Amino acid sequence: MPRPSVREQLVDAAMECFHERGFNGTGIQDIARTAGAPKGSVYNHFDSKQSLAAEVMDRYAVSRRLEMLRDETLAPVPRLRAHFQYLAADLERASFERGCIFGNFGAEISNQSDMMRGKVESALDLWTAAVAQVLDEAREAGALTTGLASEQLGLFLVNAWEGAVLRAKVARDRAPLDAFFDVFDSLVA
Amino acid sequence: MPRPSVREQLVDAAMECFHERGFNGTGIQDIARTAGAPKGSVYNHFDSKQSLAAEVMDRYAVSRRLEMLRDETLAPVPRLRAHFQYLAADLERASFERGCIFGNFGAEISNQSDMMRGKVESALDLWTAAVAQVLDEAREAGALTTGLASEQLGLFLVNAWEGAVLRAKVARDRAPLDAFFDVFDSLVA
Repeated sequence: MPRPSVREQLVDAAMECFHERGFNGTGIQDIARTAGAPKGSVYNHFDSKQSLAAEVMDRYAVSRRLEMLRDETLAPVPRLRAHFQYLAADLERASFERGCIFGNFGAEISNQSDMMRGKVESALDLWTAAVAQVLDEAREAGALTTGLASEQLGLFLVNAWEGAVLRAKVARDRAPLDAFFDVFDSLVA
Repeated sequence: MPRPSVREQLVDAAMECFHERGFNGTGIQDIARTAGAPKGSVYNHFDSKQSLAAEVMDRYAVSRRLEMLRDETLAPVPRLRAHFQYLAADLERASFERGCIFGNFGAEISNQSDMMRGKVESALDLWTAAVAQVLDEAREAGALTTGLASEQLGLFLVNAWEGAVLRAKVARDRAPLDAFFDVFDSLVA
């Protein structure tokens, strides 16, 4: 495997710091120290902490694997469930302490940076549309009994997931995710 | 009406600042300026920004009006719905920009302050238990068709609400709350 570039190491370090301490709680010095790089190297690669945060969000979005939602080797409902289970396993590896970077940034800095609020909004909208699309497929296949519109249900499920993830972070416990799956199985069937 | 004490003015100002800029984004100087008080007055009344934040959470908890959930003049399901509608109206007055202080603090500083994480956890647990209690009453009255346990459904609903509130903050729009009520009506009936 090729050695990661300094730029990549800085993005990884920033992701770790932002997850741990939030945006305002993280200094450029913290990021440099975590990356084992001199502080000046951050400004060699990024204009500002915000532009580094933007790149962190781009990399985080890729790690959410939205492509799982288009995997037609699985029927729509099990496919949607597998996607949330993938996300749950990722949270479990970090003992539920991390939460979702979109939720974390959305809660912390929506009123301070329109760029970051807009990026969080777009990422969640893209995800919601992909979930609604799977729900549409489920409905066409006769696998959905609810009369709720896919768009409404998709919006609800993404938000309910974000709320469950936040609660799991606060409680350091998977019970909120288990409750999500229980209701998911009752709603989406 | 008696003039609010300096202490009360500081708590009100801190609530406003924390909603707007989060915990780490708010300085003692910001709070003093918002309250129109000298910076030293903050330390005359509070040991630290954290102890001020703890008092903000206590005051915020009172404003959530959990007693609405025990109002037996309403049947359990309409009572639970009225409670969430009260919370929605409160968010609407702030153009959906504020979010919930428990969700905001939980997302931002769960990993930085065990005192604050613990306070957020307790507040959400208390609220969840009150919601589960209403669901139990609804079930006893034969007004609940779901087979889900009240504890699981209560935990899910509180988290789904927090997620919807966070999304409304990011989107500056009430659509996430509307989706919550749509699914609420389908689940809790």
